[in-house]
Parts: sequence; structure tokens; C-alpha cells
Amino acid sequence: MASGLAEYAGLAARLGVDAVAIVPGPNFTRMTGRSFHTNERPLVVVIPAEGPPAAVVPNLELRSFDLVEFPGEVFDWRDQDGYQPAFDALARHLPLSSLAVEGQVMRVFVHHALAAAWPGLKIVDAEREISALRIRKTPEEIAALERAIAISERALARVLDQVRPGQTEKQVEQFLVQALFAEGAEDQSFHPIVAAGDNSARPHASARADYAIRKGDALLLDFGARWGGFCADITRTVFVGHASDEAEQVYDTVLRANLRGQEVTRPGVTAHDVDDAVISVLEASPFADRIRTKTGHGLGREVHEAPYIMRGNPQVLEPGMVFTDEPGLYRVGGFGVRIEDDLLVTETGCRSLTGFPRELIVVAR
Amino acid sequence: MASGLAEYAGLAARLGVDAVAIVPGPNFTRMTGRSFHTNERPLVVVIPAEGPPAAVVPNLELRSFDLVEFPGEVFDWRDQDGYQPAFDALARHLPLSSLAVEGQVMRVFVHHALAAAWPGLKIVDAEREISALRIRKTPEEIAALERAIAISERALARVLDQVRPGQTEKQVEQFLVQALFAEGAEDQSFHPIVAAGDNSARPHASARADYAIRKGDALLLDFGARWGGFCADITRTVFVGHASDEAEQVYDTVLRANLRGQEVTRPGVTAHDVDDAVISVLEASPFADRIRTKTGHGLGREVHEAPYIMRGNPQVLEPGMVFTDEPGLYRVGGFGVRIEDDLLVTETGCRSLTGFPRELIVVAR
Repeated sequence: MASGLAEYAGLAARLGVDAVAIVPGPNFTRMTGRSFHTNERPLVVVIPAEGPPAAVVPNLELRSFDLVEFPGEVFDWRDQDGYQPAFDALARHLPLSSLAVEGQVMRVFVHHALAAAWPGLKIVDAEREISALRIRKTPEEIAALERAIAISERALARVLDQVRPGQTEKQVEQFLVQALFAEGAEDQSFHPIVAAGDNSARPHASARADYAIRKGDALLLDFGARWGGFCADITRTVFVGHASDEAEQVYDTVLRANLRGQEVTRPGVTAHDVDDAVISVLEASPFADRIRTKTGHGLGREVHEAPYIMRGNPQVLEPGMVFTDEPGLYRVGGFGVRIEDDLLVTETGCRSLTGFPRELIVVAR
Repeated sequence: MASGLAEYAGLAARLGVDAVAIVPGPNFTRMTGRSFHTNERPLVVVIPAEGPPAAVVPNLELRSFDLVEFPGEVFDWRDQDGYQPAFDALARHLPLSSLAVEGQVMRVFVHHALAAAWPGLKIVDAEREISALRIRKTPEEIAALERAIAISERALARVLDQVRPGQTEKQVEQFLVQALFAEGAEDQSFHPIVAAGDNSARPHASARADYAIRKGDALLLDFGARWGGFCADITRTVFVGHASDEAEQVYDTVLRANLRGQEVTRPGVTAHDVDDAVISVLEASPFADRIRTKTGHGLGREVHEAPYIMRGNPQVLEPGMVFTDEPGLYRVGGFGVRIEDDLLVTETGCRSLTGFPRELIVVAR
């Protein structure tokens, strides 16, 4: 893993901090090639701008940590002693006055242990800069994503084949999850959203066990398989039995916005530009008051990561970035429509990694 | 949810802090009855010792947050504006000088947003005290756990029926996960551990795609279904084809330690007492140098929570507490054995919620 560490040491130097700390999560897995169950037991790798790294590791994890081939000092701790003495020993070994951390991954109890070990330590949230190291995906990473997406699409096809009025949202969710694993998912990217009727108007709805799907309902499915550590994220909205005129018009609007995202995405445009182009389609429609969300978010080892595709974000798109293109319209008390694809920025434009049909589908006709 | 909030307001008063902050996670779900996908978007409920609560909620989540029937002021924020202004508005609305947070749930970026909103705010990690509110499970919660455990045991039976030499750890893991969902799991409690041969000697091993199970291997499966928000956690170690004399002796030792845990658990004894009794069995055996772990951890909405069953923990056991009894012995480069049950403390002693046979099983004979 020595070469992986060099990148983070270089980042510490660029950020003007003494070191970068990485805890188990997406950056840790990328750096070491391994993931850890840590829960209540802190495990932290500290990579200084110069000199060898050091780590705090639960004693329980030492034999798994061996596999990482970590080239620095390891301070382990046993449950019965608590972790603070290991942090204190690390601090004596490696004096620091400033430390960059992953603000969206590290939890407060680790932050407090660091602050206690190095009194006066300046802890900087460098989530954006640390995660930026994985924003351009490698060909191997893209292949893993494509496999996760293919699994997800096969599962979706299975589900749409068997949806019938009278099933509850929860039943459809259960079937979807089984189909994902039957098709080869290693995990789910996130707990799926299966929402019919008025529930589809909540962008992040939870499936209800007490709502049976009715003829005429919109049925929104937002889910994804994880494979090889990479997260698919797909949404399709179908209609059960038949689609009303309003449903068709709204669907057509969202679809045009989704396709606009593909048209404008290419290296050199910004995240702002893409969102602006997509949302402008919705704003120009009669359904502008149903806009609730931005266009999308990056996708990779985490299901939400940079680049965030929203107005005001000056991030310039580069080949290898992957993000969701998921415009939606949501009428509270009515229904919602979202169509979500996973786009890869290429050298000349973009390619949708999602191949599932985007046309309006009526199931259980 | 007003009654749920009162408990946290009372805790703030007891802790001598101005307020308690709860973020999406196990305590949040218990308090509100709902869970949220939040990812990079902070959502925080602040409950003062006296007076109405207030919250910061992503605009995107407002329609889902409505379902919580929150009886206080809500400061929402949109992606394009960022979340800090909502925290600042909350701070103007509700002056605070000290705040208790869930240190193992809240992430650093939320901590920083709180610290920026209330300059000089004393942020106290009250993970232990906040989570203690859910340490005694209700009958409904126990019923959910029992269902999660029953699903897990049926899945395990399916897997053991089909394990054969030549399969990889990863293949067995995949089959186990499919079986969990086919049996009704809503989610997994955690990514399962499926470890054969020398990998079983790593307490938290990852399944290997490149290791085919051999005759004579130990095969350790540690996994659990989540149902109704509650996490099962079960380990069984079986042997493939045949069990060596060493395997039988080690297994017998671990089993005696596991059963000792059931014998000593009753209200009034401490977590220390249980661990001491269990680990003493291992220490008195010829395999004392293979001890790597404490006896177990609490189980509920999280797969690791209080009470932690380890020496030095003075926590007195009370009826309604649930924890794992999972002694193990691990020989590096050899094999490991762990036998894990989920124990419920009753009025007079304890009851194992896990019913799966504990006797040594040889599969694929």
C-alpha cells in the first residue's frame, strides 16, 4: 500500500497541514484495498506530509490489518483498556499541530480522541479534497460500476414483470431486494425507495407495508446493487395499469430534462452548467412548482459523492467522473416522477452506463 | 413524537447541558419512528432541557419530515445554499452554551457546523447516556429481534445444507445473503463474515473469492438479518468433511465458555462478571493463547451497542437487555472457532433468543 499512501502525504503538503487522517470508509478501502468492520472501535491511519505513517488499530483487527502491509508504526488497543492510550501513544510518536480529516466519514468520538491526544490540534475538515482523489474513476473502477449497474437492471426487469395492483410497496421492495442478490449483488448501495401513488411525491420515501398499489398509480423505484465496492444508483418510474394524461405530460418533461443532461455533459463544462441545463427544462414546463431536487451526485465507492451536480458548483467535469442524472417532478399529495441514469464523462462527451429503457412503461396492463 | 422528545429533554437536564442533539441513526429512529437517508445532507434535531425543540432539515426531506409530526421550529436548507445558514438561524433561535451529541453517530462535518453556529459551544460526547435510553428492550422490540433471528437461522440451515469442498468463501457468502433475503430479511445487520481455514482465525475476516474450501477446514459464518429495524447477530463454526481432534477439543472449549455465559447471566450481575466467567473457561484451557476477543456486545437497532460484555465494565445487567455471547479461540495460521448466541436478560436469569444447535456440526460429510 506504500504508493497509495504517497498520494495522501502529497495532499497533506498541498493543504498545508501536518498530516491527513483516514478512517475506514471509501477512502480507506481505496487506499488499502480492504474494508474493516469498526463500529465502536476506532481505527485511524495518520499520514504525515513527510515521514512514515502511523496508525491506531483495535487489537482485535491486527490480523486483518496485517493484510494491508502497513509500512508504519501501529498502536493497538484492547477493549478492556479503551482506545485513548493508543491515541496518546501515537501523539507522542508523531507530534502534530494540524490534521486534515474526512468530515463526512469520521465520527465525533474519533475527533474527540484526536483532540485529546494532541492538545491544541487544529482539525480541518478536508472531506472535499480527500475525496477528490477518487473523483476520476479508473477503467477497473468503471468496470465494477458497470457490473453493479447490469445487476441492478436485471433485477428491475424481474420486478416490473411481476408488479400487480394489490401488492404493497413493502412487498415490491422485498422482491426487488431478493432479485438484486439473486442477480449477483454483493450488497445494496442503499436501502431502496419503492413508492407508489402519493408516496412517490416524496423524493426519499420509505416503502409502506400498509399501502396496496392501485391501478393508475405511479410506482417509483430507486435502488442499486453494490459490486466490487462500487454503487449503482438507478431510478425508474412506471405506471400501474394505465397512465393519465397528466402522468404522460409530466413523464415527458422529466425525460426531456434527463436527456438534456446527457446532451450537455462533456469535459470542460461545470457541474453548475449541467444542472442549469437540466433544471431549465423543468422550469420551462407547466410543472415548475414541482421541482424539489438538483440534477444529481457523483457515484462510486459511495452512493453520494462528488461531483454534486447543482447550480453554484464550479467543479469542472473531467473524463472518468461518474454522476447521476436524475431530474424529477413531485406534486405533494399527487405523484412524483424521477428518471435516473448514471453518466460517465468521456474524453469527448459522456456515456450513460445505465441502459434500461427510459420510455414510459405501463406495467400490469 | 412529543412524548419521545420528553425523554431526551429530561436527559439534557440530567447531564447538565442546555440541549441534546440527535441525528439520523438508531436513536433518531427510536425517537421518531422513521429513518432518513441523509448522506452528505445534515439533519439535526436539537432538544433543549426546557422549551420546544428545533431542527435543521434538508429541504429535500421536508415532506418526509412532515410525517414525524415534529412539534418545533424547522430550519430547512437547499443544496444550492449549503447548510450553514440553517444552523446559524437555529442558533439565533435557540441560544446554547453546551450540547450533548451522539459521538458514535454524528460525523465531524455536523460537529463543525454546530461549533460554527454557536461560537464557544461546549460539545459533549454523550453517546453512552443517549444510547442508554434504548438499552432495555420493549416486548415489541424483542419480538422484532426474535423475528430477525428466526430469519437468520433459516438462512443458515439452507447454507449448511449446500456447502461443499471446492466452493469459495465468496460463493458461500453470496448464497447466505440470498438465503437471508429469501427468508424475509429487510436488510443485513452487517456485511457477513464467511471464513474458512486460516481465514477463520481472523475475528473479522472478509470472504475470499480466491480460496476454495477444503475438506477438514473450519468454516465460520457470522452474520444476521435485520427486521423491523432490529439486528440479529449469529455465529456458528462448522467443519467441512471431518473435524480433527484439535478441532473437537477447541470447539468443546468454546462451547463450554458460551454455555457458561448463559449460566451466569441474570439481573444484578455486571457485564464484567459475565465476561470474566466466560473468558475464565478459555483461560483455564490449553488454548488460552488463542484468546483475542471479549465475550460480546449489546444488540438492538445497532449490531454493536451497549452493554459491552467485557472485563472492567461495571454495567449492571437488567431485564430487557440483549447482548451477544460469543467467545472464540483463534490460532493464527491455523483456524478459529466462535459460537455466538443472542441472550435476553429476563427477570430471573436469561433466555437465548438463538435456538440454532450449538453442537459440533460436520457438513458435506
